Amino acid sequence: MTTLHDCQALDATDALRPLRAHFTLPEGMVYLDGNSLGAMPSAAAARVADVVTREWGRDLIGSWNSARWFDLPQRLGDRVATLVGAGKGEVVVTDSTSVNLYKVLHAAIAMAQQNDPGRRVVLSERANFPTDLYIAQGLCAAQGLELRLVDAQDTPTALADPHAGGVAVLMLTHVNYRTGAMFDMQATTAAAHAAGALAIWDLAHSAGAVPVDLLGAQADFAIGCGYKYLNGGPGAPAFVWVHPRHADAFWQPLSGWWGHAAPFSFTPEYRPAPGIGRYLCGTQPIISLSALECGLDVFQAAEALGGMAALRRKSLALTDLFITLVEERCAGHGLALVTPRDHAQRGSQVCLSRHDPHAPPLHGSLPPEGAVAALGRPGSGESGAYAIVQALIARNVVGDFRAGDPPGQADGVVPMPDILRFGFTPLYLGFEDVWNAVEQLRQVLESGEWQEARFHRQNAVT
Amino acid sequence: MTTLHDCQALDATDALRPLRAHFTLPEGMVYLDGNSLGAMPSAAAARVADVVTREWGRDLIGSWNSARWFDLPQRLGDRVATLVGAGKGEVVVTDSTSVNLYKVLHAAIAMAQQNDPGRRVVLSERANFPTDLYIAQGLCAAQGLELRLVDAQDTPTALADPHAGGVAVLMLTHVNYRTGAMFDMQATTAAAHAAGALAIWDLAHSAGAVPVDLLGAQADFAIGCGYKYLNGGPGAPAFVWVHPRHADAFWQPLSGWWGHAAPFSFTPEYRPAPGIGRYLCGTQPIISLSALECGLDVFQAAEALGGMAALRRKSLALTDLFITLVEERCAGHGLALVTPRDHAQRGSQVCLSRHDPHAPPLHGSLPPEGAVAALGRPGSGESGAYAIVQALIARNVVGDFRAGDPPGQADGVVPMPDILRFGFTPLYLGFEDVWNAVEQLRQVLESGEWQEARFHRQNAVT
Repeated sequence: MTTLHDCQALDATDALRPLRAHFTLPEGMVYLDGNSLGAMPSAAAARVADVVTREWGRDLIGSWNSARWFDLPQRLGDRVATLVGAGKGEVVVTDSTSVNLYKVLHAAIAMAQQNDPGRRVVLSERANFPTDLYIAQGLCAAQGLELRLVDAQDTPTALADPHAGGVAVLMLTHVNYRTGAMFDMQATTAAAHAAGALAIWDLAHSAGAVPVDLLGAQADFAIGCGYKYLNGGPGAPAFVWVHPRHADAFWQPLSGWWGHAAPFSFTPEYRPAPGIGRYLCGTQPIISLSALECGLDVFQAAEALGGMAALRRKSLALTDLFITLVEERCAGHGLALVTPRDHAQRGSQVCLSRHDPHAPPLHGSLPPEGAVAALGRPGSGESGAYAIVQALIARNVVGDFRAGDPPGQADGVVPMPDILRFGFTPLYLGFEDVWNAVEQLRQVLESGEWQEARFHRQNAVT
Repeated sequence: MTTLHDCQALDATDALRPLRAHFTLPEGMVYLDGNSLGAMPSAAAARVADVVTREWGRDLIGSWNSARWFDLPQRLGDRVATLVGAGKGEVVVTDSTSVNLYKVLHAAIAMAQQNDPGRRVVLSERANFPTDLYIAQGLCAAQGLELRLVDAQDTPTALADPHAGGVAVLMLTHVNYRTGAMFDMQATTAAAHAAGALAIWDLAHSAGAVPVDLLGAQADFAIGCGYKYLNGGPGAPAFVWVHPRHADAFWQPLSGWWGHAAPFSFTPEYRPAPGIGRYLCGTQPIISLSALECGLDVFQAAEALGGMAALRRKSLALTDLFITLVEERCAGHGLALVTPRDHAQRGSQVCLSRHDPHAPPLHGSLPPEGAVAALGRPGSGESGAYAIVQALIARNVVGDFRAGDPPGQADGVVPMPDILRFGFTPLYLGFEDVWNAVEQLRQVLESGEWQEARFHRQNAVT
């Protein structure tokens, strides 16, 4: 059995431990929700104050030049690039993930259609993050294309199916937001290319969380989020990458002045900037962009300690430890592992569901073999997942709840159960934090306190 | 002749003078560039610090509920609505002006095409802000429509022309960014409707600057900017309004999760929110949004002092005074008035060009009758406009320069000259400020110091 002492010993030899000092977190909190909103880098308060009072308040419009506001999307993009295996000048930080997905999906469809107008399918995962599906749904409807959704493991079959009509674009989220399951980007991109399709990757739960090698995988387009593992602050602008082989080939439709080759010449004709610059559109929120820079500074500090490879080793050690401790210390309460055990398929989070306590306590396949037997209607409160998460938050262990699939899934689709979701950010979490989180979970389960009314949602599904 | 004492007397009786205390501006600066980037409300530093350290750093994801981050676009939108003659629940603050224009232009085209597929023209002003034209250019190309550009005064003719093919959408900026000329929104919208077209108004230089009555004018769509007269900070998010009669009728294409009827039910099918909510797309930059709230707070304080009507009276008094003083004190240096003298056609800025000094010194028609005789090739430095602006900035009077039209305009198009642009924000400018600005301009012109090399651009046109 793993002991608190074992966890403390892991902390004592953790070379990444000094990075914790770059963050300010509430005293005593174990924050396992950095996959929703990353913690605040301690430098953010002073940096943002300086942007507000000096750059805006004192230097005013002069800061477009003196503080280099205008190339902030490129400067931050270059730093994101180092985290996702992209080159200098290939990434810009701008707009929201949804808006950036619209840009690249539009460009990818245009490119695929130009190569072969017969390809009329955008393929994605049924359990992809909804906004990705919404954006694709809108674009496909507008262009008369089909948005085809399959289960993750059926992606290769769906790509290769010669009877199903040609796939123009494969659009996937690298690490699934609910399950933490991770695609093999290289193999999946290769399968897309072999089938004649282009590959778009959403890195919302990958950038800063797991090693990503966009150029190595020969990916075509990528987008990602600034406010999760990059710790850029609430709603921080997102990023967009286009492989250099495509960057000059197409316009994206949001052809605003920041994407113009010469934005301040104010010419009436749009002329797209070379390279990734043309994926910019309008003026960007400078204060929020500046806060993101503080998040990226921490990754720069992590470089000297081994960078993303070292962060990945620690992330896997943290999630392995969490799984082990839940198995050892929380057995008999019906928790089941939703996130894959296989390191190659796991992001930086661990998701649990709750099943009949008499069912085997944990398993690691995806989708969980026991999902159909998950307790209660998803989101109804019957599974207990929501209340357990709330009881944990009351004990200062912050994870989150994601409702399972509603009833009425298509034939053959295994519905996703309610999820207790725990994100592990190796920048600011230690091994004793994991011990404490599981100890609180154990107490919540053994005391049965989560069944108290105060932990239940007032409106069952909102 | 107007005297400094006259200006001081105007300040002494200015009921809006207390509003100046809501802003922090560099000591001794006369800031006439609030039409590019509004000055910093003094409350912004503390507000932003609180968002960073308490809402983000301490309360973390809990702030989506406790600090009501999620409905910030609607809450701020309701406050913008009061400044532009829109109703509660009709405006959201989100994304950039360019992205919002894409949304509404897409929706307007869809609506117009549904009513009459034969209407295949988007009509706009040739001298419209370039990003508006770029967005329209992209959308028109994608949909096989024609973007037709005319001079402002030819808009009614172009709308009514029965031989020219039907106009689907009239897309105009209410106050021109370079000239300060203002359209009659009510009459122009009525003309568009009479011609069977929908009207989109860009309020970038109107919101917070001049009274706007979107509902009274029966306008169809509007967008606007948060970082100019609303004083929301660099790159502050923009806003979008749709007339309630259209709001539920169409999707906009950026169908992200923030525009979903139930964003946190994470259903795979997009279902647009009722009303203006469907014009949201992705997660918004909360820190930048919060700074904008401080700008809007000042307008709330202005309400008790007469609101937009009082601000408009003062704005016209300031621009009238500036014109008078330039005429009285800077004659003989070839400055010409580009902004209309007629109050009904003037925004909250005054633009000058520089002509042959032997030409009549000032005139008020638009486009300036003498534009063809403006000094030098636009943007080349030959007009002196750039250098004069730089010399003024060195004397702490901050306006800006906008290059005129490059050579090679279409037949019959009078090219715009180089512009010296001065924005007048009645919230923080006084009448003595105007005196001081013109006095510095007089000294710059009479000393000839602007001809010194230090005030000239290194690269003539960048």
